Amino acid sequence: MATPPRDDYGPRSIDLHRRLKGKLSVSSRVELSTTDDLSLAYTPGVGAVSSAIADDPELSYELTGRGNTIAVVSDGSAVLGLGNLGALGAMPVMEGKCVLFKELGGIDAIPLVLDTQDIDELVATVRAIAPSFGGINLEDISAPRCFEVEERLQDLGIPVFHDDQHGTSIVVLAAVLNALKVVGKRLDAVKIVFSGAGAGGIASAKMLLEAGAANMTLVDSQGAIYEGRDDLNEAKRQIAKLTNREGAAGSIHDAIEGADVFIGLSMAGVLGREDVARMAKDSVVIAMANPVPEIMPDEAAAGGAAVIGTGRSDFPNQVNNVLAFPGVFRGALDARATRVTPAMRLAAATALAGMVPSPTAERILPSPLDRSVAPTVGKAVAAAWTG
Amino acid sequence: MATPPRDDYGPRSIDLHRRLKGKLSVSSRVELSTTDDLSLAYTPGVGAVSSAIADDPELSYELTGRGNTIAVVSDGSAVLGLGNLGALGAMPVMEGKCVLFKELGGIDAIPLVLDTQDIDELVATVRAIAPSFGGINLEDISAPRCFEVEERLQDLGIPVFHDDQHGTSIVVLAAVLNALKVVGKRLDAVKIVFSGAGAGGIASAKMLLEAGAANMTLVDSQGAIYEGRDDLNEAKRQIAKLTNREGAAGSIHDAIEGADVFIGLSMAGVLGREDVARMAKDSVVIAMANPVPEIMPDEAAAGGAAVIGTGRSDFPNQVNNVLAFPGVFRGALDARATRVTPAMRLAAATALAGMVPSPTAERILPSPLDRSVAPTVGKAVAAAWTG
Repeated sequence: MATPPRDDYGPRSIDLHRRLKGKLSVSSRVELSTTDDLSLAYTPGVGAVSSAIADDPELSYELTGRGNTIAVVSDGSAVLGLGNLGALGAMPVMEGKCVLFKELGGIDAIPLVLDTQDIDELVATVRAIAPSFGGINLEDISAPRCFEVEERLQDLGIPVFHDDQHGTSIVVLAAVLNALKVVGKRLDAVKIVFSGAGAGGIASAKMLLEAGAANMTLVDSQGAIYEGRDDLNEAKRQIAKLTNREGAAGSIHDAIEGADVFIGLSMAGVLGREDVARMAKDSVVIAMANPVPEIMPDEAAAGGAAVIGTGRSDFPNQVNNVLAFPGVFRGALDARATRVTPAMRLAAATALAGMVPSPTAERILPSPLDRSVAPTVGKAVAAAWTG
Repeated sequence: MATPPRDDYGPRSIDLHRRLKGKLSVSSRVELSTTDDLSLAYTPGVGAVSSAIADDPELSYELTGRGNTIAVVSDGSAVLGLGNLGALGAMPVMEGKCVLFKELGGIDAIPLVLDTQDIDELVATVRAIAPSFGGINLEDISAPRCFEVEERLQDLGIPVFHDDQHGTSIVVLAAVLNALKVVGKRLDAVKIVFSGAGAGGIASAKMLLEAGAANMTLVDSQGAIYEGRDDLNEAKRQIAKLTNREGAAGSIHDAIEGADVFIGLSMAGVLGREDVARMAKDSVVIAMANPVPEIMPDEAAAGGAAVIGTGRSDFPNQVNNVLAFPGVFRGALDARATRVTPAMRLAAATALAGMVPSPTAERILPSPLDRSVAPTVGKAVAAAWTG
């Protein structure tokens, strides 16, 4: 018998937001009591600071907040699993992200929702605002546009990281590594099925392949992805070459047959209890659709899954980007990295998995509220930056 | 004998900035101790907030920080009186401005320095970021580009206010009104000479004309501005029609002859003691070049000026935009105004002047650190918004 999830988060969250009118506060770190204070923080003293930076732009990291400040940028085209809610609709999520950046990573993060969904304009806007920031976290930009936006910004000189791709791929890899420890299977021997081939699905699949996974099938809304399917975008064409070796067509209900690991980055209710029952023994179900997962944990358990994770805070095994992004930027900023490289992402996943040395079915990852996660991930990420 | 100004602000300010590494901090206003907290501030609860705003965009003012958050935007093309220092060079000034917005106006302000000085790109960038903010303060953008940038953004639906123009014009009008009270002269009877016909000069001249000034000459780096001078940009051509009725050419040294009021928005050292000596009896000298004024106060006094103001914190009568911009935005945000109208600016100037009911030579304006200025100006500005 399925227990429905708590369904009062929405109304309670709206109440909280209405009371707060904004989850962030910008405050001064400068004393401002005397005219001397004003003369130093502002004019005339600040003129010397500006001139010094104009002479040596590197000083912007020493004399302004740039080195610890990032922008959380979204066009609102893919907000959580809710779809295209537009810039204003994305704002509460971006504010929440900024809360987490500060609380967990110690990073000053600013939400910027953009009134355009045009790739060229998104790229131009991020380029324009870049001098204010030490890094850019792209967020909730729909696939496949997000791939091009992120790719075109890699030469910006500061880390540009699309969290829906790479934050997701880091926590997915960490979760899978530890879940497989629990069930005693090897990454290179298991069959992995993805539901969802958007930003998170594609990036997670690539990362699992890099880490050694060999047998994998991605399923999108049109069915299994295979080489030669004639409706694939470029990102899916690439991943088709590396996955679904047998070239099998069919739905998620076909693909799931005998799978060891299900990874859901798609939408609510895609997977049924009977699907889980047809997976291999000791199956792993990680259902991350947000806010409602592909299958609720109790249903997955009833189907026989041995290890179950979701993206939600209110169930065990929260497989959520919050375990990755604060630490990734903490490390990238500390190292003054100009990009977040694959090696840095792999280091993040390994460090994250390593925080639970003896994983169990109920605990494959540390808690998202564990304040030691971001520093630990951050150190690993910074160390993996090779310049 | 002239006393040189304190000249250690620069090095001391650099020390302060090096110690702080950023004058602002972004912090969370949400408790984040339990998974329930996380479920409300972030996923899954935040999904309902996003959906509500997507359905009714006006809710962005109720459920996010937008209604109390502004961007302080600069392209670094005219930083203080120091010239084109570029985006990174502008950052310490914009951070300082944001400190003042919060400390004095209670407004969450975010510095955004832009890596472009192209008018179309500036306009496009501000349009793109607008949904994140309840208002835009443009800053340190060189004339005449600033006029077009501001004008083209007036349809944005949120107040777009170029402080170098309008903040300056508000404090200049307030200062002149009260200085003339001190010397017992009438605005419509005095001869006013401006040094500087950039953003602040043009806007202040227009505002003084609106308030009743009749005899005025602006002087730029090429000399007095008169109708028909063949090197004038559009803004100067317009102001030439309204000023310098005699069409006199010549330098600032010619124009100053017999003037009652000197207003400097140009650069250090433009005016000499001997120039002040040739002004009318009981002259008013307001020398706002930053960080070093057109004439130092002791030199102006030696020349015989009766009332002397500068833009600096370290002399009496600081005629500085800080007296205007926190209150202007406080009022505009409180009224949910979509623009800052001329009536709102006039209300700001009148309210500001009214805060010193009995001005003296040593005190024509309240202190920039007087915490009652922004609320007082804000109330007047909000009341003057007629929708």
